[in-house]
Amino acid sequence: MRSFRRFYSAAPLEAARLQTNKVATPKTYPDPSKLVFGHEFTDHMLIADWNRQDGWAAPQIMPFGPMPMHPASCVFHYGFECFEGLKAFRDVNGELRLFRADKNVARLKSSSERLALPSFDEAQALELIQRFVRMEEQSVPEGRGFSLYLRPTMIGTQPTLGIKSPDNARLFMIASPVGPYYSTGFKAIRLEATDWAVRAWPLGTGNRKLGGNYAPCVLPQQESAARGYAQNLWLFEGYLSEVGSMNLFLVFKNANGKKELVTPPLDGTILEGITRLSILELARERLDPKEWEINERKVHIDEVISRQKKGELLEVFGSGTAAIVSPVKEIGFHGEHITVPMNGKEAGELTSEIQKWVQDIQYGVEDHPFCPVVPKF
Amino acid sequence: MRSFRRFYSAAPLEAARLQTNKVATPKTYPDPSKLVFGHEFTDHMLIADWNRQDGWAAPQIMPFGPMPMHPASCVFHYGFECFEGLKAFRDVNGELRLFRADKNVARLKSSSERLALPSFDEAQALELIQRFVRMEEQSVPEGRGFSLYLRPTMIGTQPTLGIKSPDNARLFMIASPVGPYYSTGFKAIRLEATDWAVRAWPLGTGNRKLGGNYAPCVLPQQESAARGYAQNLWLFEGYLSEVGSMNLFLVFKNANGKKELVTPPLDGTILEGITRLSILELARERLDPKEWEINERKVHIDEVISRQKKGELLEVFGSGTAAIVSPVKEIGFHGEHITVPMNGKEAGELTSEIQKWVQDIQYGVEDHPFCPVVPKF
Repeated sequence: MRSFRRFYSAAPLEAARLQTNKVATPKTYPDPSKLVFGHEFTDHMLIADWNRQDGWAAPQIMPFGPMPMHPASCVFHYGFECFEGLKAFRDVNGELRLFRADKNVARLKSSSERLALPSFDEAQALELIQRFVRMEEQSVPEGRGFSLYLRPTMIGTQPTLGIKSPDNARLFMIASPVGPYYSTGFKAIRLEATDWAVRAWPLGTGNRKLGGNYAPCVLPQQESAARGYAQNLWLFEGYLSEVGSMNLFLVFKNANGKKELVTPPLDGTILEGITRLSILELARERLDPKEWEINERKVHIDEVISRQKKGELLEVFGSGTAAIVSPVKEIGFHGEHITVPMNGKEAGELTSEIQKWVQDIQYGVEDHPFCPVVPKF
Repeated sequence: MRSFRRFYSAAPLEAARLQTNKVATPKTYPDPSKLVFGHEFTDHMLIADWNRQDGWAAPQIMPFGPMPMHPASCVFHYGFECFEGLKAFRDVNGELRLFRADKNVARLKSSSERLALPSFDEAQALELIQRFVRMEEQSVPEGRGFSLYLRPTMIGTQPTLGIKSPDNARLFMIASPVGPYYSTGFKAIRLEATDWAVRAWPLGTGNRKLGGNYAPCVLPQQESAARGYAQNLWLFEGYLSEVGSMNLFLVFKNANGKKELVTPPLDGTILEGITRLSILELARERLDPKEWEINERKVHIDEVISRQKKGELLEVFGSGTAAIVSPVKEIGFHGEHITVPMNGKEAGELTSEIQKWVQDIQYGVEDHPFCPVVPKF
């Protein structure tokens, strides 16, 4: 991975300079069980503006509301935008926890630098997220499966039409209280493998969380949905890459009698998912190596078809911040229906186990370095 | 090329419903010779809002100014944005002309549909552009090389975070008076071939004018600039694709004694440039087939290197709306310097001829269907 030149910035991003302007009357939320992902927002937003000459202005927490934008802003025209999605949890003891926010901050920085948008100190950005979450503490819903979804976003705001490294940019963050992805337990989904469109390419930018990677995925997803599939499965030259906007995992039974947990490798075509990383790290630590192999390797759709026929395909699931894991019961491809044995359940054994591992960490059942308590300021 | 499902839209986009709100005092522009591309904007902007339920609202021409945007607008997060660039000219008789605006409208529609953004009737969009140009008539600068650059843009404005076909969108247009790309005649540039990043790939979206295609190109361009090159040359698996944000043409001397004008084919990795198309159409009509071959074919960098060594590389140029043609005098690649014979000039013979063909059409020296007079309403 090459490193990118840093920008000269007159003033660094500094959490200590944070200014806050609270709303007079905090909002009241609807019944948490009625929350729809990303529809309700908290009372405040965080904004930090940057320009090439002065560097970072003092970050501001202010009432949530419209942002007036110059119509020539480069975010509208050339895709100068990248984002993160992460969650804050109210744990079983009432403490506030953030899941691997340090990883999100590092990825946002990497995305921003790849787009020639400004860089920043990761520790300062992390502290801004922590301070914002503390400020919105009352908006973090209670209960296993509930969380406050945080959306840090970097956009280019240069108000001229030449295509260049923006001289103006804005880091902002909004937050949305969200309910469980599966409100009534797992619900396994059907995928359709897409081979008429390609999401990402080696040496492209599909490994970073850039806005421009997402909109082109909607039409293929719609086409799969029209044929009755919940999501599409992205192939690259026949190899499995991602599912919808999640990373992909499979469980095989190998000839040596071991089970194999597999996910496609980070070859530049796969988002470097933080849930993906966490699952790999936990599985390597917790699954018995006498029984399990854990591999990042390429998996061709033909391998999935042939091993399913031999009874060697055990589980398939997507992974991401929204659902943690999302079990798959069928993959459609050119009229083939690759069915995953579900044994009358909505999720495989390992899929369910991983969900429990991660949720126990998120809700403080297990005090784990992945999900530290948010400091008080 | 597959066709995409249309959106149901309750009300169509209709130019006849246009409402105008003029500024009280028209602005005065600086000396036209001091115009910087895309820095000055005209007094007005055009906005047409769409939502899935009601369809298109009445288009509005209103004073140019900031657009208040919901922070969750999907244009900020997922790259729901596409645009066009086209020019209006004041011709030698003082008439107002638009260059192939029908082609830009068709491409905007194709881009918008690929992103699951709304569709529209092309004739209505064209009429809106024509009406807007008539309204801004006094902002179209005089003189060969001067023009009013128009920027129609479609963005998703859905104010929620789920990734889906937006239920809200905005078509808007701003305009910027611009001066000649080459204020003192051609200036040939040096390119560096980039092979550490790829811009586009087959079955991707690099053939459409999506915002997300552009921001990732800036860092490679900066790296080339740091090594003294004006632009980078995009390769795909060794084959030439685009130069900076222009299409690419080469002129070879072939073994049969003919000259060959070559541009990479529209295989999905190349923007379907309107200047590119116009050059091909004019060249097929005007160049003597006894002397010329005109081909859309793949050209490998190794072919360029070897034919340059044999003295068979005659000209290289980029093509686009901004410059029409942009002559290239050298391509750097892995320490090789592929020089183009310039014969002491800043542009090759055909490069200069094409520039004259297109400018004569744009400025009404030749009355040509590519650049009709804008109707009066």
